[in-house]
Amino acid sequence: MSIAIIYPHRNVSDWIQALHTHGPDLKIEVWPDISAPEEVELALCWNHPDGSLQQFPNLKCISSLGAGINQLLDDDSRPTEIPLVRLVDDNLKQSMAEYVMAGVLEQFRRFKDYRQQQSEKRWAELEIPHISELCVGIMGCGEIGRFVGNKLADFGFTVRGWSRTQQDCGQFHIYAGDDELESFLSHANILVCLLPLTPKTENILNLQVFNQLPKNAFLINAARGSHLVEADLLSALESGQLSGALLDVCRQEPLSEQHPFWTHSKISITPHIASPTNPESAAEQIVDNYHRVLSGESLLNLVDIECGY
Amino acid sequence: MSIAIIYPHRNVSDWIQALHTHGPDLKIEVWPDISAPEEVELALCWNHPDGSLQQFPNLKCISSLGAGINQLLDDDSRPTEIPLVRLVDDNLKQSMAEYVMAGVLEQFRRFKDYRQQQSEKRWAELEIPHISELCVGIMGCGEIGRFVGNKLADFGFTVRGWSRTQQDCGQFHIYAGDDELESFLSHANILVCLLPLTPKTENILNLQVFNQLPKNAFLINAARGSHLVEADLLSALESGQLSGALLDVCRQEPLSEQHPFWTHSKISITPHIASPTNPESAAEQIVDNYHRVLSGESLLNLVDIECGY
Ligand SMILES: NC(=O)c1ccc[n+]([C@@H]2O[C@H](COP(=O)([O-])OP(=O)(O)OC[C@H]3O[C@@H](n4cnc5c(N)ncnc54)[C@H](OP(=O)(O)O)[C@@H]3O)[C@@H](O)[C@H]2O)c1
Ligand SMILES: NC(=O)c1ccc[n+]([C@@H]2O[C@H](COP(=O)([O-])OP(=O)(O)OC[C@H]3O[C@@H](n4cnc5c(N)ncnc54)[C@H](OP(=O)(O)O)[C@@H]3O)[C@@H](O)[C@H]2O)c1
Repeated sequence: MSIAIIYPHRNVSDWIQALHTHGPDLKIEVWPDISAPEEVELALCWNHPDGSLQQFPNLKCISSLGAGINQLLDDDSRPTEIPLVRLVDDNLKQSMAEYVMAGVLEQFRRFKDYRQQQSEKRWAELEIPHISELCVGIMGCGEIGRFVGNKLADFGFTVRGWSRTQQDCGQFHIYAGDDELESFLSHANILVCLLPLTPKTENILNLQVFNQLPKNAFLINAARGSHLVEADLLSALESGQLSGALLDVCRQEPLSEQHPFWTHSKISITPHIASPTNPESAAEQIVDNYHRVLSGESLLNLVDIECGY
Repeated sequence: MSIAIIYPHRNVSDWIQALHTHGPDLKIEVWPDISAPEEVELALCWNHPDGSLQQFPNLKCISSLGAGINQLLDDDSRPTEIPLVRLVDDNLKQSMAEYVMAGVLEQFRRFKDYRQQQSEKRWAELEIPHISELCVGIMGCGEIGRFVGNKLADFGFTVRGWSRTQQDCGQFHIYAGDDELESFLSHANILVCLLPLTPKTENILNLQVFNQLPKNAFLINAARGSHLVEADLLSALESGQLSGALLDVCRQEPLSEQHPFWTHSKISITPHIASPTNPESAAEQIVDNYHRVLSGESLLNLVDIECGY
């Protein structure tokens, strides 16, 4: 009985140490050096290579080492009968809230415009609305989106959410489904994407959606690069429908050297750092799930493979 | 009986409108066009010219149109027997919290470093501590500083405060007086100045203070320019003792064209916009104080002229 970590090009000693803190006797092997593939019952994956999950005949559970599982679902060779779990973690939520709050405040308080003015030695106050007049729209109100939306609302922003199914979240109104997308978008001065990547949400950040936002809206994408139609972002920035974008994720990561986003004055790029998984805080739920695998109990944070998230 | 507004180079029609909302019958005159100086009982001042308060023989109260009153105290010709009041206002606190939170998050989440990397087309994660490991030190825990500190603590930062007298503020510890300054400074990774400008706090942001901060600390000054010894900031940035600074205020505003701060790569300048007074929200307390002046009741937000704030 063992656990395999499949996380290419990454020294995983911190993961091994964190897992051993919660399960000192665990046998952990690191792909590609798996001495006994038939013993592996739990596979922990991030950026796993397609096909790498086929070598474990007695696999009982696949766990993502992040909140998203789109890359696992994209692997056609993945054994589809094996349950898939993901991470739900307070640190992931907090770190995303920090990133989004930093991006929202930078845009709201016009820090980028003031940097521009500084470079021109210009001392001039720029207009801003009252914080309550600025509406932040959160696309995807799951574990992370709800937490982020509540932090923004606590701080004074007007917040609206959008999810697939109807829900109640107390501090802000959540619009649901395709029917309510237009109403949701119509007031979002800053649109924050925190959706999971599924066939339904791929390319959802497109010109039609941008055109339903208030003029001069700002985009933050901290979910996955493939939500965004890149050419549509460039058009919307060109026309002034969008005033700018902060992108933590790209269709191809790292962003290729020739990519126009690098040098676009209205686009800020961060290298997929909004909310990195912290092994120390994530290990406990993984070890817990491993015991559940062994004892046949129901798993934590099980992915609904039909829904794709 | 009338109110005089002394706010040079500023169209004050929004102030007049806001004051009339709360006192439709108020007689308001705008300096320098005062038809009946002997009627003026309340003077509302921002950047008033030295001497301009001497013309009102029946003045009963001077009100600052902001939180600070240092400029009024600096005017040697001010009639010293007239009570001085200032603004305490939820919007001032909120707006300062936005500014400081924006600056703190930008520094903590290394947005400026990521902009630099973007300009080099570099895709690389930069290390950051956990939010609870980053200590923000608030110098000046009055109306504004306490509010800002609580917002930062709510969000997850470790916060320490420093004030003149011992106080209790619940969410974070407040160090008091010169004796506890060193302990206060020793952990402040980000130092935020929200002090009033007085003879005791002038030049307080100096090399000796910077050297008591942890190495690589970051400075935010959103109080007054004269707290800062400018040459000492340049030395501390040069030596690496400070990693950078965000300055909303300068000794001379606007900053002169030749000033080295404009082009310093580690200094971000904003043009005294952290927390502008909002006439709509401030007018009520001014009208209230005016009625108190007329009826002889005790005034709101009275300045302790002895203490200088
Ligand atoms: N950049 C980073 O560093 C980083 C870090 C962590 C996570 N992420 C991304 O953040 C995503 C969200 O994580 P999470 O833990 O919050 O996921 P989650 O708990 O599964 O929440 C997903 C949310 O999206 C909604 N949704 C899904 N499909 C939808 C559709 N077709 N239309 C409308 N709403 C839809 C869901 O609606 P219902 O509530 O109705 O089900 C739910 O509110 C992850 O999948 C990952 O891609 C990025
Ligand atoms: N940049 C902007 O846009 C902007 C906007 C608004 C205000 N401001 C600045 O912010 C300042 C603070 O406003 P506020 O309304 O919070 O003032 P406040 O309520 O009077 O608070 C002043 C605080 O500073 C402390 N303090 C004063 N002298 C001190 C000393 N010598 N040593 C240690 N602590 C000392 C006081 O200590 P105690 O509590 O012990 O009395 C108090 O905690 C204003 O004076 C103004 O200059 C700037």
